[in-house]
Amino acid sequence: MGSIGGKKNYKLTISYDGTDFKGWQKQKGSADDTIQGKLEHIANILNGCETAVDGAGRTDAGVHARKQVASVKIDCDKDAGFIRDYFNRYLPAAISVDGVEEVPERFHARLSAREKTYEYNALTAKKAPVFDRKYIYCYGKDVDGEKMKRACADLVGTHDFKGFCTASPKKKSTVRTITAANVTVSDTCLPEEGGKRPKAVRITLSGDGFLYNEVRIIAGTLLEIGSGSLPEDAVRKVLETCDRSLAGFTAPPEGLFLTDVKY
Amino acid sequence: MGSIGGKKNYKLTISYDGTDFKGWQKQKGSADDTIQGKLEHIANILNGCETAVDGAGRTDAGVHARKQVASVKIDCDKDAGFIRDYFNRYLPAAISVDGVEEVPERFHARLSAREKTYEYNALTAKKAPVFDRKYIYCYGKDVDGEKMKRACADLVGTHDFKGFCTASPKKKSTVRTITAANVTVSDTCLPEEGGKRPKAVRITLSGDGFLYNEVRIIAGTLLEIGSGSLPEDAVRKVLETCDRSLAGFTAPPEGLFLTDVKY
Repeated sequence: MGSIGGKKNYKLTISYDGTDFKGWQKQKGSADDTIQGKLEHIANILNGCETAVDGAGRTDAGVHARKQVASVKIDCDKDAGFIRDYFNRYLPAAISVDGVEEVPERFHARLSAREKTYEYNALTAKKAPVFDRKYIYCYGKDVDGEKMKRACADLVGTHDFKGFCTASPKKKSTVRTITAANVTVSDTCLPEEGGKRPKAVRITLSGDGFLYNEVRIIAGTLLEIGSGSLPEDAVRKVLETCDRSLAGFTAPPEGLFLTDVKY
Repeated sequence: MGSIGGKKNYKLTISYDGTDFKGWQKQKGSADDTIQGKLEHIANILNGCETAVDGAGRTDAGVHARKQVASVKIDCDKDAGFIRDYFNRYLPAAISVDGVEEVPERFHARLSAREKTYEYNALTAKKAPVFDRKYIYCYGKDVDGEKMKRACADLVGTHDFKGFCTASPKKKSTVRTITAANVTVSDTCLPEEGGKRPKAVRITLSGDGFLYNEVRIIAGTLLEIGSGSLPEDAVRKVLETCDRSLAGFTAPPEGLFLTDVKY
């Protein structure tokens, strides 16, 4: 199917713990401490020449992926199982290629993506359980889940998300569509803090694309609405005015996971 | 209840990710990179004088605890909630005091312990899922769960466990009682390796006390019985002969958790 000049096109399904990396995207002139950099280094050796590995979502430094998708063109004489094993043998333990599948030549992980889903995990506790500490953000304040759910519903639809973006590019469109937005607030069995049992917060957003820091600013805004630091209509106001200053803080990267990409 | 010379006796329930520590026990003259060292440093400040924090199990370097118990004597004017918050404020994120409870003066975390439970987690896969990689050992070979279960049953009872011990002390007794020993082997949803779906192995041992490296040598022995590298009766033979050379390898620390201590 995807054979071009002796190469086939492959879709890689990848998971990674982003804690110790400077994000997905390879950086010019810097040491090789990005996910893309690690993957391209191995792809280069596999093909014996410079090889691009394109990812569906360019996750920030410290952000994790349970399911990232990338596309890469590899010499025809390698099969999918060999390619997966080869990547996994040389990748650090914090990155795993979980699946390799041959795809049509025109498939591109980012350009062909129809929908991405991100999940943001937070706790109202001050200190995280030790085994989750790199994968959840401790907000340290109690939240009203119902307020967060009502505010979250305002996100769904096609809007200009400029107010939920850090340093938006001047000329590019900041209009995107969020197809699903959910908040769940659940009880935990963690020790009480100040007489209250900490709660677990999970914010899930699906959409056609997300701006720089968008999910983290939305998460920060929803948490501040939940704790009462921002008014209940803050999400609607930011969408109407595109005013970043009306939104909440940028929630830290450790709570964020890319969890799915649909084509 | 436990007031001695202006101090009360407290039972601390502690969890930790052992990855980056040199084990529980404070080491003379070395930098403070043990769990006990971190706890005693804070207890010293709390009391304004040298203060011992005694742990129920002296876990090795790299071994984790979901529930470790320690005892410590603290000045009477502090209450349990204050003590917990104080420890958690100054402990690294990889160690957490999950509970503090006042106990009778005679209570000692190690000497009063009646039963400890350890859990060893392994995968038959070559590469661990990225978010579990520090908490599970990848054995890389398929195992026969039924063989492991039968061999595991031989451990229960009072035996001389010298053959399952590294560098056993010459004069001290190596007789211990294992009250419960279980192996579960379950399917995973991990990607296939060599046409086979990796399995998850969990070995759980409860007993009145365990020798140095005992749980890890038992885990290694059971895995080797499962993969056919050791005969099915290897456990029984080691117990009969006390011959370490008939047992399996010492399974690495990352798969091991102290999960409970009973009094």
